[in-house]
Amino acid sequence: MKSRQMVLRRYPTGMPSAADFDLIEAEVAEPGEGEILVRTIYLSLDPYMRGRMTGLKSYADPAEIGKPVPGEVVGQVVASRAAGYREGEFVTAYSGWQTLARHQVSAAGGPGWASIKKVDPHLAPISTAVGVLGMPGHTAYAGVIGMSDLRPGETLFVSAASGAVGSVVGQIAKIRGARAIGVAGSEEKIAYVTGELGFDGCFNHKGDLAAGFRAHAQKGVDVNFENVGGDVFWACYNAMNLCGRIIVCGGIAGYNGPGPHGPDRTMLLLGGMISKRMKMMGLLVSDWMNLREDFIRDVSGWIRSGDLKYREDIVEGLENTVTAFQGLLQGANFGKLLIRVADDPTR
Amino acid sequence: MKSRQMVLRRYPTGMPSAADFDLIEAEVAEPGEGEILVRTIYLSLDPYMRGRMTGLKSYADPAEIGKPVPGEVVGQVVASRAAGYREGEFVTAYSGWQTLARHQVSAAGGPGWASIKKVDPHLAPISTAVGVLGMPGHTAYAGVIGMSDLRPGETLFVSAASGAVGSVVGQIAKIRGARAIGVAGSEEKIAYVTGELGFDGCFNHKGDLAAGFRAHAQKGVDVNFENVGGDVFWACYNAMNLCGRIIVCGGIAGYNGPGPHGPDRTMLLLGGMISKRMKMMGLLVSDWMNLREDFIRDVSGWIRSGDLKYREDIVEGLENTVTAFQGLLQGANFGKLLIRVADDPTR
Repeated sequence: MKSRQMVLRRYPTGMPSAADFDLIEAEVAEPGEGEILVRTIYLSLDPYMRGRMTGLKSYADPAEIGKPVPGEVVGQVVASRAAGYREGEFVTAYSGWQTLARHQVSAAGGPGWASIKKVDPHLAPISTAVGVLGMPGHTAYAGVIGMSDLRPGETLFVSAASGAVGSVVGQIAKIRGARAIGVAGSEEKIAYVTGELGFDGCFNHKGDLAAGFRAHAQKGVDVNFENVGGDVFWACYNAMNLCGRIIVCGGIAGYNGPGPHGPDRTMLLLGGMISKRMKMMGLLVSDWMNLREDFIRDVSGWIRSGDLKYREDIVEGLENTVTAFQGLLQGANFGKLLIRVADDPTR
Repeated sequence: MKSRQMVLRRYPTGMPSAADFDLIEAEVAEPGEGEILVRTIYLSLDPYMRGRMTGLKSYADPAEIGKPVPGEVVGQVVASRAAGYREGEFVTAYSGWQTLARHQVSAAGGPGWASIKKVDPHLAPISTAVGVLGMPGHTAYAGVIGMSDLRPGETLFVSAASGAVGSVVGQIAKIRGARAIGVAGSEEKIAYVTGELGFDGCFNHKGDLAAGFRAHAQKGVDVNFENVGGDVFWACYNAMNLCGRIIVCGGIAGYNGPGPHGPDRTMLLLGGMISKRMKMMGLLVSDWMNLREDFIRDVSGWIRSGDLKYREDIVEGLENTVTAFQGLLQGANFGKLLIRVADDPTR
């Protein structure tokens, strides 16, 4: 059987372009003992993938030249020689940017995120298994519930507030009795964040950031859930309260360069940590597998009760993956970005 | 009665110079009801004082033009109209850079550091009440015991390792079963740190820092107790282990400029927080008054048992305060820097 694959031709410099990838077809062997074959339905596109395209080992192995870009998918088992997995079942798997992949199913369930996980199509649409009920939702939950020590009445700020992680962060803050404010990149997104999502305030990250914080965080910011970095990080830093907590989840502003501008602000940053006695913590969701059951239970419950909304931005066709990924890095998507490469039989 | 005072003439630019201060004499009134008169014996000189000389409100009120530079002293009560304070008793007080000061003694004991505290001359030399048994020692204790979560076998790094704070930090780490390494500014200081203080390693902060960490932190650094900032901070940052903790206590490298050099490294810093899941925390000792009894008990015990050593650098005469303070900011002192402005009757 054949798999269509979007493989890395070379490591991109700056914004990834079509010339950095090849769309190819590769043969996939029949599953061996303990293996399953998974047909991709949805590819998940996430900002962290840019970090893998550098050839540098970070918290995860880098993408390999000539191989599909790594990433999680929602798919369907089309052949199985693994106990407990039947044809037709839905799973998430680290297939990467391709339409068909063979996976070893470890008896122990595998190590955290990289493992195959069954998806219950009755819990929520299967696409959410890489969105609000998957890695982005889990990231938001781990940061707010596991790390931030957010208390009722406090103010939480989140950058990329309409995105897959940010939208969940702010809504959990609201559910926990805190104020939620954020930034987004268009009037339409801002209206969505303050309307549908119920944030207390949202302003444009391309506007006057200091004025935005003065207007929307009149009592200062207690928790910054940082997805973006750059100017937004610094504007929020200046608005932080004593004993503020900064959850560092991402820095999309720095992923493609043009690289740092202006003089070094390391000493300013260290000085602020002391004068405001702040805490800054790096967040990687794979450290928080212990919260996975709580996360699934709480967030699926909040979705059913209507307390937590989500939005998906679904692009059709593997051939459009690179363009969609470029858009993601520039904030062009609106909601969790997915590529549909096969019909979803549950819709 | 007269007090000799070293007052601020203007806020210094860069390194403070003699021209920024005036040595004057001022009249001190007799103590009123609830007040005491304290004759200064030792002035404490500490790097944080540079931060007060800016006119900017930080975590503490700024120094005022025409007034003595604020700071803690060890002194003797020479007149008292406050219940519980007798002539001849030793105290610490926030008199600032002057020889005699009148203080209100609040019934409640006052708010943390700014309060008058009695000094027991039988516990240790009275000068230690602003050193190893005072604010610097308490700062070290709060950072290592209260914040760092340092475990036996881990490696702690501290900058300014021979200084009033750093020397205590490393020795507490050793007492707790961890490895202690540090940097200092001369061969003599390095020999003291690895010899008398028993650190596992120490290297020169003016040398090849990356090589120093390779040689002395072969298993990486788990806790950085940061006093200095600048290049030392970054060299240590690159050597940090997964789940490392950074206690930000000071940034003496940035106190006098020449200001930041090189491009902004904010995004590098945020990226490292994520990829290594680190925690960075600002430390201000006044938040840790709850540990004061434990600190005094433990550190005075360790001094008696010989597990914890300290060294004082005593300069004679109020008129030499500015020169000594310049030296402190350049690392010219060796041990806790004090100005003796009157005879110590206990020595």
